[in-house]
Amino acid sequence: MRRKILIVGAGKSTSYLLDYLAQRTEVENLHLTICDLKPESLPTKIKEHPACSTVKLDIFNTTDRSKVIQESDIVVSMLPARFHIEVARDCIRYGKHLVTASYITDELMELDQPAKDKGLVLMNEIGLDPGIDHMSAMQVIDKIRDKGGRIILFESFTGGLVAPQSDTNLWNYKFTWNPRNVVLAGQGGVAKFIQEGTYKYIPYHKLFRRTEFLEVEGFGKFEVYPNRDSLKYRKVYGLEDALTLYRGTMRRVGFSKAWNMFVQLGMTDDSYTIENSEGMSYREFANLFLPYSPTDSVELKMRHYLKIDQDDIMWEKLTELNIFDNQKKFTIKKATPAQMLQRILEDSWTLGSKDQDMIVMYHKFGYELDGNKAQIDSNMVVLGEDRTFTAMAKTVGLPVAMATLLILNGKITSPGVQLPIKREVYEPILKELKSVGINFKEYHMPYTGYNPNTTMS
Amino acid sequence: MRRKILIVGAGKSTSYLLDYLAQRTEVENLHLTICDLKPESLPTKIKEHPACSTVKLDIFNTTDRSKVIQESDIVVSMLPARFHIEVARDCIRYGKHLVTASYITDELMELDQPAKDKGLVLMNEIGLDPGIDHMSAMQVIDKIRDKGGRIILFESFTGGLVAPQSDTNLWNYKFTWNPRNVVLAGQGGVAKFIQEGTYKYIPYHKLFRRTEFLEVEGFGKFEVYPNRDSLKYRKVYGLEDALTLYRGTMRRVGFSKAWNMFVQLGMTDDSYTIENSEGMSYREFANLFLPYSPTDSVELKMRHYLKIDQDDIMWEKLTELNIFDNQKKFTIKKATPAQMLQRILEDSWTLGSKDQDMIVMYHKFGYELDGNKAQIDSNMVVLGEDRTFTAMAKTVGLPVAMATLLILNGKITSPGVQLPIKREVYEPILKELKSVGINFKEYHMPYTGYNPNTTMS
Repeated sequence: MRRKILIVGAGKSTSYLLDYLAQRTEVENLHLTICDLKPESLPTKIKEHPACSTVKLDIFNTTDRSKVIQESDIVVSMLPARFHIEVARDCIRYGKHLVTASYITDELMELDQPAKDKGLVLMNEIGLDPGIDHMSAMQVIDKIRDKGGRIILFESFTGGLVAPQSDTNLWNYKFTWNPRNVVLAGQGGVAKFIQEGTYKYIPYHKLFRRTEFLEVEGFGKFEVYPNRDSLKYRKVYGLEDALTLYRGTMRRVGFSKAWNMFVQLGMTDDSYTIENSEGMSYREFANLFLPYSPTDSVELKMRHYLKIDQDDIMWEKLTELNIFDNQKKFTIKKATPAQMLQRILEDSWTLGSKDQDMIVMYHKFGYELDGNKAQIDSNMVVLGEDRTFTAMAKTVGLPVAMATLLILNGKITSPGVQLPIKREVYEPILKELKSVGINFKEYHMPYTGYNPNTTMS
Repeated sequence: MRRKILIVGAGKSTSYLLDYLAQRTEVENLHLTICDLKPESLPTKIKEHPACSTVKLDIFNTTDRSKVIQESDIVVSMLPARFHIEVARDCIRYGKHLVTASYITDELMELDQPAKDKGLVLMNEIGLDPGIDHMSAMQVIDKIRDKGGRIILFESFTGGLVAPQSDTNLWNYKFTWNPRNVVLAGQGGVAKFIQEGTYKYIPYHKLFRRTEFLEVEGFGKFEVYPNRDSLKYRKVYGLEDALTLYRGTMRRVGFSKAWNMFVQLGMTDDSYTIENSEGMSYREFANLFLPYSPTDSVELKMRHYLKIDQDDIMWEKLTELNIFDNQKKFTIKKATPAQMLQRILEDSWTLGSKDQDMIVMYHKFGYELDGNKAQIDSNMVVLGEDRTFTAMAKTVGLPVAMATLLILNGKITSPGVQLPIKREVYEPILKELKSVGINFKEYHMPYTGYNPNTTMS
């Protein structure tokens, strides 16, 4: 009997995941059942693979869902995060392990004891971010601790970007992931972190003006804006004593200053709808956020409002997006400003078929050892192949696939609702990731404390 | 038998209301029952007045509340707005009229038909703003319409300020009303209005930079920032065709630019709590919102972050509030930034016992009549006497008191959930307000369209 892996949800992040498992069906004696609302969209090599079955499944159909889960040995859910919970409950009910790349929710956490009671592994947050960030950070943290060191600073940054060879617009940015998440990034709460023992709070409208800079060997300069809650993993990582905890999102230098224009205008707001959005031109949209004038153009009002000099590259960044075009129109009814801005950006930032994406991750670890302070920086760069085999799909999908086999093969055994911070998880996975070119470079250096080059405005 | 008026809630806005009614007990054959959680705080002249009884009442005690309502002929509720609904339901149950100075809620509106069925008047929004604004606006609007004119522009502004003789700080502002509302002003949704037929939306973080200016004869210049929803009364006033609808809050010129510093810092946020707020100094509080630096002072970081030049009056406005003081400490546990900012401001902006407040209201009406465009501006200024007999208490309390007598005397009869936009309401009340010095000056002028002096940044 082949061991049955059930994969629920086969969206664009699953290309590498499916290939990895499909290539191992003989060696590992596997059968893959891939369920999706549109299984016909799956690649031919998967649909015609002798050890793969594809099934049309509506995840809300309880009977169908229970049936495929019952027939499996382990379940991988690549559904949108909010849909995992029903799958997870079925896994408990029928005694199956589960792997997801999504954040652990309070709802999911309620299944921790039931999973432990049945000896089931519910592994989550094992994609890129969350995922590779946890594993690569914990590996260095454990290494420092093993030597008797004490972590005093931890900063961690990730960016889903466009590869240098496909970096063709003034924003140095294209959508390599869900565009809506990019437009709404940073909303929903104050950004909170600790620097040298002091709590710091940044309101959304200042987030993109409080960046700091990083250099990645061979890839040049990047900037970082803070994530919402940098303290989220303080306990999980055991960093209660660290004086600096800061997590952020990486962009190419200049992106945040330009993005701040949309924030200042109010175009990223998703909390209300615009009157008469359907049929409105991009130009009219821009004018909604500018003062009325009987004489001045939308362009002049925009320059004045955002204080953009005539030779400022900010202006070119706006015009590149056709934001003053009076022919381009929105087709969305009752749209929020954020939905309308997303539409404008999708015109310009959608990945071309030959475009390659890039994932960058950067950690800083400050520590005290034998009375001396020291610092380790580590970073990872992964380049995509094309619009389907993206660095994003690779870095999300491969850790999930590897964890699935490790659980199936009894190498990962700690039961309950888990995230990949234990050695039994990160050691084999980081090692295997390295073999496919996903690896971190480490730099040992004197302790510099919190980034002394922070911009202050 | 004397006619019984029940007054529920006798807070600081009721000084004029109580005096007005107490002075008329003989002429109008009245008895007043004044209920409050702390009736002992009422002034002696009320407590010892032969036609007044005072009762200690917990409004959530259903038995006690029903009893006093049953025994009355009409009820005046001066409770905080959220507590009116239970009183209103009792009024319907026992067949009593009700008067409040608060906004009509959806919950209250459900009592419209029951009130009409019983012939009861539930009069609301009959204080200052809402209240005098409705009445004074509708009087001019009706006058223009009676002549066959058509309203094309309506702007309306109100400010609760400090009188010139008590205007002793750099902010030209003191708390003459609920400080919490001042700190939270403008939050909870985008500001939305129409200017010359175009919808305009302003996010909170830009609200205090989108001011316009007004001059009031004899009182100098004021500025206005937009209210949240200027379209709220479009239907109620019958202004569906007006090209400009704009409502705002008045301050002395320069207040908004300075207040914007707090907004930019994030100090007005009420959505999260600060770690270790109890015992924190004002200086530490300021530093929470500024970037970390191993060397620079909080002062320098603040100057740099807010781009304050060394000779900018903005700086003096900050230091006047002792915001960099490391001796003054907060005593509030789990405080939000807004609560902590309120505490800082209360140190400096609390009305002194001899301080006088000032209410300013300003309307603009643009209209078309016989093919010509014209404009009427009207404004009102009311000065307070002292910290108890404030202009705020006068302009809120007197319309409530007058409406109460008019309903009791059968002069206001339209049943249901009402606001004061009908002639039967505003004509007698505006006339009587004039006799106590609360009156509007009208200025007839050529139509200027939407304020051409708007600042744009």
